[in-house]
Amino acid sequence: MGSDSPHSITPLLHVHDTMSTRAPLEPIVWRDLTPLIAPKSVAIIGASQRSSSALNREPRGNRVIRNLKNFGYPGRIITVNPKYTEVMDCPCYPEIAAIPEPVDCVVSAVPNRHVPDLLESAANAGVRAAVVFAAGFGEIGGEGKIRQARLEALSKDRGFLICGPNCYGVLNVHGKAPLFASAIPQGFLAGSVALVSQSGGLSTTIANALMLNRRVGLSHIVSCGNQAGATVEEYFNYFVEDENTRVIAAFVEGFKQPQKLLAVARKAAARNKPIIVLKGGRSEVSQRAAATHSGSVAGSAEIFDAAFHQGGIVSVRSLNELIDTVSIFSCDGFMKKYKGGRRIGVLSGSGGECTLVSDAAANVGLEVPELTEATKSQLRQAVADFGNMNNPLDGTGAMYDDEKIFPRLLQALIDDAHIDIVTINIEANDPRPKELKSGNRFSAATEKAATSSKKPIACFSSIVGGPVDPEILLPLREAGVPLMEGAECAAVAIRNLAEYFEFQETRQSKAAAEAGTASSHEKLPSGILPAQSAFRLLAEFGIVVQHIAPEGIEMILGIKRDPLFGPVVLCGFGGILVELLKDVAIGIPGLSRAQAHNMLKRLRGFPILGGVRGKPPADVGALCGAIVGLSQLASSLGNQLASLDINPLIVLPKGNGVIAVDALVQIAK
Amino acid sequence: MGSDSPHSITPLLHVHDTMSTRAPLEPIVWRDLTPLIAPKSVAIIGASQRSSSALNREPRGNRVIRNLKNFGYPGRIITVNPKYTEVMDCPCYPEIAAIPEPVDCVVSAVPNRHVPDLLESAANAGVRAAVVFAAGFGEIGGEGKIRQARLEALSKDRGFLICGPNCYGVLNVHGKAPLFASAIPQGFLAGSVALVSQSGGLSTTIANALMLNRRVGLSHIVSCGNQAGATVEEYFNYFVEDENTRVIAAFVEGFKQPQKLLAVARKAAARNKPIIVLKGGRSEVSQRAAATHSGSVAGSAEIFDAAFHQGGIVSVRSLNELIDTVSIFSCDGFMKKYKGGRRIGVLSGSGGECTLVSDAAANVGLEVPELTEATKSQLRQAVADFGNMNNPLDGTGAMYDDEKIFPRLLQALIDDAHIDIVTINIEANDPRPKELKSGNRFSAATEKAATSSKKPIACFSSIVGGPVDPEILLPLREAGVPLMEGAECAAVAIRNLAEYFEFQETRQSKAAAEAGTASSHEKLPSGILPAQSAFRLLAEFGIVVQHIAPEGIEMILGIKRDPLFGPVVLCGFGGILVELLKDVAIGIPGLSRAQAHNMLKRLRGFPILGGVRGKPPADVGALCGAIVGLSQLASSLGNQLASLDINPLIVLPKGNGVIAVDALVQIAK
Repeated sequence: MGSDSPHSITPLLHVHDTMSTRAPLEPIVWRDLTPLIAPKSVAIIGASQRSSSALNREPRGNRVIRNLKNFGYPGRIITVNPKYTEVMDCPCYPEIAAIPEPVDCVVSAVPNRHVPDLLESAANAGVRAAVVFAAGFGEIGGEGKIRQARLEALSKDRGFLICGPNCYGVLNVHGKAPLFASAIPQGFLAGSVALVSQSGGLSTTIANALMLNRRVGLSHIVSCGNQAGATVEEYFNYFVEDENTRVIAAFVEGFKQPQKLLAVARKAAARNKPIIVLKGGRSEVSQRAAATHSGSVAGSAEIFDAAFHQGGIVSVRSLNELIDTVSIFSCDGFMKKYKGGRRIGVLSGSGGECTLVSDAAANVGLEVPELTEATKSQLRQAVADFGNMNNPLDGTGAMYDDEKIFPRLLQALIDDAHIDIVTINIEANDPRPKELKSGNRFSAATEKAATSSKKPIACFSSIVGGPVDPEILLPLREAGVPLMEGAECAAVAIRNLAEYFEFQETRQSKAAAEAGTASSHEKLPSGILPAQSAFRLLAEFGIVVQHIAPEGIEMILGIKRDPLFGPVVLCGFGGILVELLKDVAIGIPGLSRAQAHNMLKRLRGFPILGGVRGKPPADVGALCGAIVGLSQLASSLGNQLASLDINPLIVLPKGNGVIAVDALVQIAK
Repeated sequence: MGSDSPHSITPLLHVHDTMSTRAPLEPIVWRDLTPLIAPKSVAIIGASQRSSSALNREPRGNRVIRNLKNFGYPGRIITVNPKYTEVMDCPCYPEIAAIPEPVDCVVSAVPNRHVPDLLESAANAGVRAAVVFAAGFGEIGGEGKIRQARLEALSKDRGFLICGPNCYGVLNVHGKAPLFASAIPQGFLAGSVALVSQSGGLSTTIANALMLNRRVGLSHIVSCGNQAGATVEEYFNYFVEDENTRVIAAFVEGFKQPQKLLAVARKAAARNKPIIVLKGGRSEVSQRAAATHSGSVAGSAEIFDAAFHQGGIVSVRSLNELIDTVSIFSCDGFMKKYKGGRRIGVLSGSGGECTLVSDAAANVGLEVPELTEATKSQLRQAVADFGNMNNPLDGTGAMYDDEKIFPRLLQALIDDAHIDIVTINIEANDPRPKELKSGNRFSAATEKAATSSKKPIACFSSIVGGPVDPEILLPLREAGVPLMEGAECAAVAIRNLAEYFEFQETRQSKAAAEAGTASSHEKLPSGILPAQSAFRLLAEFGIVVQHIAPEGIEMILGIKRDPLFGPVVLCGFGGILVELLKDVAIGIPGLSRAQAHNMLKRLRGFPILGGVRGKPPADVGALCGAIVGLSQLASSLGNQLASLDINPLIVLPKGNGVIAVDALVQIAK
C-alpha cells in the first residue's frame, strides 16, 4: 500500500488521544491511596511495653510509634495488644474490632502467619488500609503464596489498600506520617522527590545518598515489597496527583499492573512530573533473584525498555545513575532555566578531565560544541594571554593562580550562544586536607554566577566517592546548581534530561495526537488462520498484501503476547540483523505514527531505510502506517490473538508503500 | 587455500616468539630511566630564598625541596640561582656548569622560555635527566612547538631523559625521591602500584582515591605531561623491571611510541605484572582536548583497543573503573588465592542489591552460578529454617538479627565448588550515624573468614560515594579482601581480572608461539599494483587467489597504515555489518594464529562463521591462516605498503580454505 493509496484504514478506527488501547475496552480506574499514605489515624499491631532500648532489638511496632512521635505525626496513634491498655502513651485495645474510633490504616508488625486473619478483621472493622512488614509471602512460594493470595483477594475484592508485605512501609514526609519499619536518622531532609522502592534496604540507601551526598529532599519514601495490594503503578499515580511531589524516583523489580504503567506515565508527562525508574531483573539470574526477593515477575527487559521509551519514563541503569539523574531533575533553579538541548559547555582546571568528560559526553550522545567566535573574542578581552579557546575550557594552572580568571571563563561559557548547559568540574569530594583543596573558591564563584545566570549550571566531580563537602554542596544546591559525581554519571544524567525534554516536545506535537484505538474485533476461529483469512485480516487494518515479493527491503513485522503487557508489536530487518544482533524494535499497542517512527529509529539498522549501497530511500511513512495498523489489530483482537508474523514485509521505495508477502496468524483457543 | 593445502607459507617466514614484527628490522632498545626516577643527586632550578609560606604562593622549586626533605630523600640536593649561595640549607650555585659535583637530574621550575637553553646547558655539564614543570610547549602550538622540538632533539640525539614538560614530575616512593610539583599530604601510603598519568591533576586525584578510599599503596607517581623526552612506554618498561612495582596503572591521552607498547606489554605479561590503562581521546572532541592539553595525538580508539587486547593490557573506561580494577589487582592476599574463572558467589543483606548485582554481572559477562547441591545441604544443616538457597545469597533480615548467620552463609559460598570468587555486599560507605550501621559486624566476620579461606573474597558497596569507613576498609585490605564501590564497578573490575587471567593462559599455550615475522620484502614499483602482481604478492604469503567467486561467506581483509602504529590488519564481514555497524576486527602485525582467532571472536558477526541459516561451518582455520599471512606481508613490506584490500575474501566450508576474489594493493611512493 502506498502512503497515497486509496485504501483507507479509518472504518474501524477512532482517532483519539489515549496511549492505552485497553482504555475503551477496560477503562482504567485509580484507587485513592490516601488512607495508606496520609492516614488520619493509625493502629499499630505488634507494639509492646516490653521494648528494649537497643535499636536492633526494638520491636518494629514500637519503632514505628517512635518514628511517628519523632516526626510529629498529627493524627491519632492507637495500639492493639490484649496485654495492655496503653503502649508508649498511646491507647491500647485488645483487638481491632474493639477500637472505638475510626482507623484509616493499621500497621502490622506481627509474624507472617497472623497477617491474613489480622487484615481481614481490620477490613471487617472498617479500616481501609494496612502496612505489612513481615516477609514470608509470595517470595518463598508454598504457604507464603497462599498467605499472599489472601491479601491480594482483600485488595482486589474489597478495595483494601495494602503496602507490602515484605517491606519497610510508607514514610510521608510533609504529612509527617512515617509508617516505616526502619529507624529514621535526625536531619531528615524534606523536599519534592517521592521515592518508591520494592526493596526496603535500597529505599534507605538511595534516600540517604540523595539527602547527604546530593542535598536532595524527599516528599515520601515507599518501600512496597511484594505489592500484594497497592502496586508501584498506584503509588506513581498518587504522587503524580500529590502537590508536594515534583519528581518520582523508583527501584522496581516487577510491575504488577503494566497495563496501567503507560496510563500513569501519560498523566505524569502531562503534568511535567518526571518518573525515573531503575528496573532490576534484566538477566536470567537477576529475574530469579527478583522472584525470591519480592516474588516479582521481572518480565522482558526489551519490552520494558520499549514501554519506558514510549511513555517518557526516564530509565536508568545503576543506583548512581538514579541518584545523579534525580539530583538534576529535582533541582528547581536549574530546571527553570533549562530549555532543552544536548550541547554542554565544560569548565575544568584539569586538562585530563577535559579529555575524559569529552569521551563520556560522546559516549551518551551529548555535544560539546566549539566556542563561538563571539565567545573567543570575549575571552581574549577578559583574560589576556589565555591561549586556550576550546570547549571543554581548560582553566589550566592560571585558574588556580589568579582568582579573577575562573569567573571570567565561566561567564564566557554562560554567554556562549551554542551552549545549552554549562557544566563545571569541581572536586566537592576532594579527600585531601582543607589547605590543599581549591574547590571552595570555585564553588563560591559558581554560586555567585548562578544567581544571575539565565543559563542552567551544573557541577560534577572527576571521581565518584569520598565525603562530599557540605560547604560546597549546600550553597550550590541552593543557588540552583546540582552536583553530580563522575563525568560518566554526569553525562548520562544530562542526556536523560535532554531526552525527557525531547519526549515532551514530541508529545505536545500534533503527530502524537494521531494514535488510534479500535473496537473489539469479531471472534475468529481458533488455530492458524487460513492464508486468505490472514490476508483479509491484515487488509482490514490497512496492510495490503500480495504473494509475489517485489524488490525492496525485507523486514519482519509481528505481534506476540507478553505475559505482562499482553500483545506487543515487533518490527525488525530480515536476515542477519535480527538473528545475530536481536535488532528488534518493540511497541506497546496504542501506537501513534510518531511512536511508530520512534520505534524504527531505535533499530540499529535504521539507516538502511534511508538508502544504503546505492539503494533509494524506503517508504518509511508507509512502514509506520503498517505498524500503526498492526497496533490497531492487536488492540481490536485483544486476547483472542495468540501471535502474528508477517515475514517478509517488503518496504518499497518512498511513495510505493509496503507489501506483506506472507503472514501467519494464530488465534488462541 | 585449504588449511591442509600443499601450499606452504614458510619460505619467507621464521617462526619465533616476538610480538612485534619490527623487532628484526628495528630492534627495540630501552633506555635506562634510573637517573630520572631514582637520581642520586638533584639540582633544583627555580628555588628562592624569598619563598612565601602560603602553599599556593610557594615557588615550585621550593616546594620540591620541601617535598624531598619531608620524604627523607637520601641523595644530594643542590640549588641553582645566581643570587644565593644557599637556599633552604642546600648549597646554591650560579649556574649548572658551576656545580662541582655530579648531578643525575635537574628539576626545572622556571618559565618555559628558559627551559631549552637550561636543559642544553645541563646536558653539556654531564647531567643525564631533567623534570620540566612548565606548560607552554607542544600543547599551545607555534613557539611552544619549537621549544618542545628542542627538548625532543636533546632526548633523541643525546639520550637526555626528560619528564614533561607540562607536568607534575616524578614521585619515587620507596626511593624517597619526590621530584614532584604538587604538595604531598602527610600519611602517603607506600605500596606496589606505579601510577603514570600525563595529567598532573588526575595523577593526584587518582592517587588520593587509591590511598584513601581503597587503602592501595603506591610505588611511584609519574605525571609525564607532553612526553617530550621519556615516553609512557619507557616508564612502563622501567616499572616492569622495578622490583618495588607489581601493578602499573595509567591515564594516557596519547602514546608516542606505540611500536614499543606491545613489546613492553609482552615483558610485563611474562613477569605477570598487569598494566591497567585508562586511554582518553576516543571521540573527536576529546582528541581535540588531548591535543590542547598535552599536545597528544590520541590516535584511533579502535586500533588501541585492538593493541590492548593483543598485548593483554587491561583497558578501563572511567576513573572509577581504574580505581576498582587497581584495588583488586594490587591486593596481594586476594591475587594469591585467585586461580582464574568468571563465576562469582554473592552474599548480601539486601534482596534488591542481589537483583542489581546479577544484572551488573550479566552485563559484563560474569557468571552467577546456582549453588551446588552440597552447598544447599550444608546451608540446610548450618542455618535451620533458612529457605533461601540461591546465588546471590540473600541473607535477609535474619542476617541482621542473628549474628551466627552471616559467617555460615559466607562459609557456604567459600566451600561451593562452582564459585571462583566470593563477593560480599558491605556498605563501607554508609553515611548514617554509627548506631544505625551494620557493616562493621559483617566486615569483622569477613576478615576472620578470609584469613582461613583458600578462595578469594572481595567486598563491594551498593552505592558509590560517601566517606569510606577506615575501620572497615583497613582490616579487610590487610586480610586480603579488596573493597570496591558499586555493583557495576565491582563486576567490571572482576571481569577485567578474569580476562587478564584468560589472556595469560592463552599466552602460555603453544598457539601463541606460532607468531611469525618476515624479512624485508624486495622493493615494489609505487602506485597501484597490476592485478597479476597483486595476486602474486598474496600468493607469496599463502593466500591463493582466483577470479571467480564460489559460494561461501563474503569477508573483507585488508591492511591500512595507521599514523601511530604503521600497518595494521583489518578483517570484517562484507556488506551491511561492516558498513552499518563498523564491525571490523583489527590486529597489529606480528599476529599468531591464536591472536588471529581472537580477532575473529571479537567480531559481532563471529557466529556467522559457525554456520547460521542452515549453512555449514566455515573454514575458520584457513581464515586465521590468511590473517597471519597478511600480517607477515605487512611486516615484510613495511613502509612501502600504502594500503591493501581483499574484497571479497570468500571463506569456504570447513576444510576447503579461503579464496581472495579481488585485491587492490597500493605501494607508497
